Amino acid sequence: MAKLARAAELLRAADHIVILSHRSPDGDTLGSAAALYRALRKLGKTVRCECADAVPKKYGYLFAGIESPEFDPEFVVSVDVADRKLLGTLNETYGDRVDLAVDHHASHVDFAREQYVDSRAAATCEIICDLIALLGMDADADMATAIYTGIVTDTGCLRYSNATPKSYRMAASMMERGADAAEINRRMFETKTRARVEMERAVMDSMTFYLDGKCAVIRITEEAVARSGAEEGDLEGLASLPRQIEGVLVGVTLRERPGGECKVSLRTQAPVDAAAICGEFGGGGHIRAAGCSLMAALDDAERAVVSAIEEALRDL
Amino acid sequence: MAKLARAAELLRAADHIVILSHRSPDGDTLGSAAALYRALRKLGKTVRCECADAVPKKYGYLFAGIESPEFDPEFVVSVDVADRKLLGTLNETYGDRVDLAVDHHASHVDFAREQYVDSRAAATCEIICDLIALLGMDADADMATAIYTGIVTDTGCLRYSNATPKSYRMAASMMERGADAAEINRRMFETKTRARVEMERAVMDSMTFYLDGKCAVIRITEEAVARSGAEEGDLEGLASLPRQIEGVLVGVTLRERPGGECKVSLRTQAPVDAAAICGEFGGGGHIRAAGCSLMAALDDAERAVVSAIEEALRDL
Repeated sequence: MAKLARAAELLRAADHIVILSHRSPDGDTLGSAAALYRALRKLGKTVRCECADAVPKKYGYLFAGIESPEFDPEFVVSVDVADRKLLGTLNETYGDRVDLAVDHHASHVDFAREQYVDSRAAATCEIICDLIALLGMDADADMATAIYTGIVTDTGCLRYSNATPKSYRMAASMMERGADAAEINRRMFETKTRARVEMERAVMDSMTFYLDGKCAVIRITEEAVARSGAEEGDLEGLASLPRQIEGVLVGVTLRERPGGECKVSLRTQAPVDAAAICGEFGGGGHIRAAGCSLMAALDDAERAVVSAIEEALRDL
Repeated sequence: MAKLARAAELLRAADHIVILSHRSPDGDTLGSAAALYRALRKLGKTVRCECADAVPKKYGYLFAGIESPEFDPEFVVSVDVADRKLLGTLNETYGDRVDLAVDHHASHVDFAREQYVDSRAAATCEIICDLIALLGMDADADMATAIYTGIVTDTGCLRYSNATPKSYRMAASMMERGADAAEINRRMFETKTRARVEMERAVMDSMTFYLDGKCAVIRITEEAVARSGAEEGDLEGLASLPRQIEGVLVGVTLRERPGGECKVSLRTQAPVDAAAICGEFGGGGHIRAAGCSLMAALDDAERAVVSAIEEALRDL
């Protein structure tokens, strides 16, 4: 399907619509679902949103007033879902009966009857915003809030390289339509749980520098996670801390896992190839962000990984 | 002076122009100066930028290729300077001979012969951008880089409540004119000095919670500053850390100073009045951000301030 107008046409013709978000939902998949739900409701349709995992508390405001009626779906649309596997437990129910997939992931693996995928969009919410316009509607304040949320959460509040001038301008329009940008950003970026603070304290305390400060290592231990009461969401982004330090070319995060496993995340600055280093341990990933897993105690894993990094830096 | 066109007229008529930034320069005063310098140079004028303090290394890219010729100034323009005192050591030389002040601070105290002050602008760079257009010019890539920098540094990358849809749209235009947004944001927001990391570690370690977690206190000790080698710039924003924690209504930062002084910064969430609490100790400020100074050891200051906060919370 080349044109978003076709997606609008399909939705306009449909009723009893289920909107699917991906598992471990983030601001973009939830913002897309909430905005599309509200637009379809305004067209008088019966709609519900589904997700394999619970909506994290921080995104609760997106769903204020949203209802979840029971019905047999006649049309299923997925938003921000790059692969049917990412439907999680909903894959079994819906994986082979998605009528329309709307997504922005370049890695999208076709699974729906029809799909609209635009990888130039920084967030699926950008596509949803255009789609709502094609449905003949102006975004209201609730839709604007949802779309703004998706744009800023997928771009680090417009900081990352995926944010385009279109992202900025769309965010501006959403503010004019009623999105409270400062409040959304406060919730998304300026609020930390106590557990998160404890984890930051623990990983900062664990930070060790190697190789003239070119390599920094932090540790996420089982004990620290248990003591802080941190959930997975509280650990998000910790792995990016070491690479932010001036002079650090390779940031390493060691995560202790049950059963003697140590998960390693590498973040690198140019020209260091994170995937190549992780490849030596049977892992992989992207050139600046990769991971691997070692069956080893943290100290041993640290020694092995730092030694591989030393090799890699020597070759530069 | 009501109209920015008048500022453009003054600049067009002038030559041998000195552009003044405020002391302890930030991205907005430096971005404004760099962008305006480049525009005036394109008009064939002789220009130099001056600032009482050295340009911090992180802003060095703004001044690539900018020259500092010797001449007797015929026209002096200040950018982002809210008060002549903020010229620092340049106040003596230039304080009473500023021909034009361009600023966005609501607290601007008139000191120049003429001024253009627009407090709706999130950054003085927004005004400079409009001014450059009035000088009959399109911003080139270097000007766009400087303007983008000023907008994002004064708005926390568009996160804060001062950012307007105009800020977003202007940032988008600057990207289209050549500002490398992702790289600028990486330098501004994703890069920390080793000293900064050490200071974050020290203040995280010092963090104490009071009043059922409604109050969090951190300490910046002389010893930690000396040990980390932190400069003033490395301490920027530390005071905002405690208030970011879920449940914290009052974040307190105690800064040990020479001579037995303890400087206190308060950051509050609604409805707590930071200025009122600091007022009890002879300080003041805004409703959500205020400060005061106590001649007391840190422990004593902490006790006194927490006790005042307890009172304030009881009254809510």
